[in-house]
Amino acid sequence: MNDALTPSGLEARLRDLLEKRYHNLHPFHRMLHSGQCSKVQVQAWALNRYYYQAMVPLKDASLIGRCEDDGLRREWRKRLEDHDGDEGRPGGIERWLKLTDGLGLDREAVTSTRLLLPATRFAVQAYVHLVRERSLLEAVASCLTELASPQIITERMSGMLAHYDFITPEIMSYFDKRPPQAERDANFALEWVKQHAHTPEQHQAVVDTLAFKCDVLWCMLDALHYSYVTPGLIPPGAFVPKSSDA
Amino acid sequence: MNDALTPSGLEARLRDLLEKRYHNLHPFHRMLHSGQCSKVQVQAWALNRYYYQAMVPLKDASLIGRCEDDGLRREWRKRLEDHDGDEGRPGGIERWLKLTDGLGLDREAVTSTRLLLPATRFAVQAYVHLVRERSLLEAVASCLTELASPQIITERMSGMLAHYDFITPEIMSYFDKRPPQAERDANFALEWVKQHAHTPEQHQAVVDTLAFKCDVLWCMLDALHYSYVTPGLIPPGAFVPKSSDA
Repeated sequence: MNDALTPSGLEARLRDLLEKRYHNLHPFHRMLHSGQCSKVQVQAWALNRYYYQAMVPLKDASLIGRCEDDGLRREWRKRLEDHDGDEGRPGGIERWLKLTDGLGLDREAVTSTRLLLPATRFAVQAYVHLVRERSLLEAVASCLTELASPQIITERMSGMLAHYDFITPEIMSYFDKRPPQAERDANFALEWVKQHAHTPEQHQAVVDTLAFKCDVLWCMLDALHYSYVTPGLIPPGAFVPKSSDA
Repeated sequence: MNDALTPSGLEARLRDLLEKRYHNLHPFHRMLHSGQCSKVQVQAWALNRYYYQAMVPLKDASLIGRCEDDGLRREWRKRLEDHDGDEGRPGGIERWLKLTDGLGLDREAVTSTRLLLPATRFAVQAYVHLVRERSLLEAVASCLTELASPQIITERMSGMLAHYDFITPEIMSYFDKRPPQAERDANFALEWVKQHAHTPEQHQAVVDTLAFKCDVLWCMLDALHYSYVTPGLIPPGAFVPKSSDA
């Protein structure tokens, strides 16, 4: 890319990238929402995805902690509130644990993260490190997968409720709340990026960061697919389904 | 683990862990050294493993950069010399590029690292970050997979030379040099860890770090196996074999 893009040209490139590389295209996602997963495969997904949820506030606080613009800090603080909640108002992490509880997973086993697939840990940590170490523009841009998340959440929600008798609306409460939050956050971040990326190099950095973030989400599903579907080789130390749940 | 181990008890635990979790047990390693890989699978392995080789000196320099013990710094500097070489004396990275050249990979495509599997990048970066961020004891302990590396290198060397007509002694020169270096380095690090880990918590940290490092290496082979063997789903943007090499 040699010429600077217009703001709407940048937005078009980002949306095009999401259409090609967002993890709703991954075969494991298609299995999950179309009812082709076993209960243990859904458990493995929820247990691994918990780590992503749990690290999001650390990622967001790291961004706030390096941001000199108080308006951006205030806006970004909403994300902390959404994920961590308040006394008496459970946040996103607590609602994710309703899902893992409802799937019959031991809460300590989930929150200790000791049964994660190593690839999950490495991918999520790569995301957190990018937000801590790269430019503020890249740190903001890394959340732009949220532009596509209302759609994937809606697919997951309706597909999982329709296809699995062990999934109930109550344990899916995480997914009720997220779409409007994600939409608000994604639109804010997109406008911020469009206003703050001026040079061809900055535009390329924004696009590259969104590709990186797509890789993070894709890699997590690759690892679930490899370990729990085909060839079904679980790495040493990771979650092994109890045979009674198989 | 409640009681502190003796130094030899710690060594026994570390060697036991390597016997159970070192990546010579991974099915992709077994395929590679027993002649069951296609040329493109060997290419994918060499291209991805290049990133590990290329990041090793950054990891080692980061350790030296946080080390107040000049004796340890001098000892660790040998690793930089081995990997980066000198004018007229190629180091380990340069010798690895002889392998990728010999396999017909474009050198710029390899050194740019743009065709890596994302899981490779995330796993290697997790290793570098551990060395930068955790205690010096853990940073030193993270290299202890080298205790097992002379064996795996010897297996790879003889197996690959015996089974693949596209593998010649000349392009395998990396593997000639490494076993004595790895043995010297591993023995030094093992003695250092045995002298500097005193409490049960320190012993556990050393064991956990070696398990983490085994996970890094295992995760890299999981990703190769998933992407290039079974189910053979290459993530977007990663190395795609030319059909003429298949």
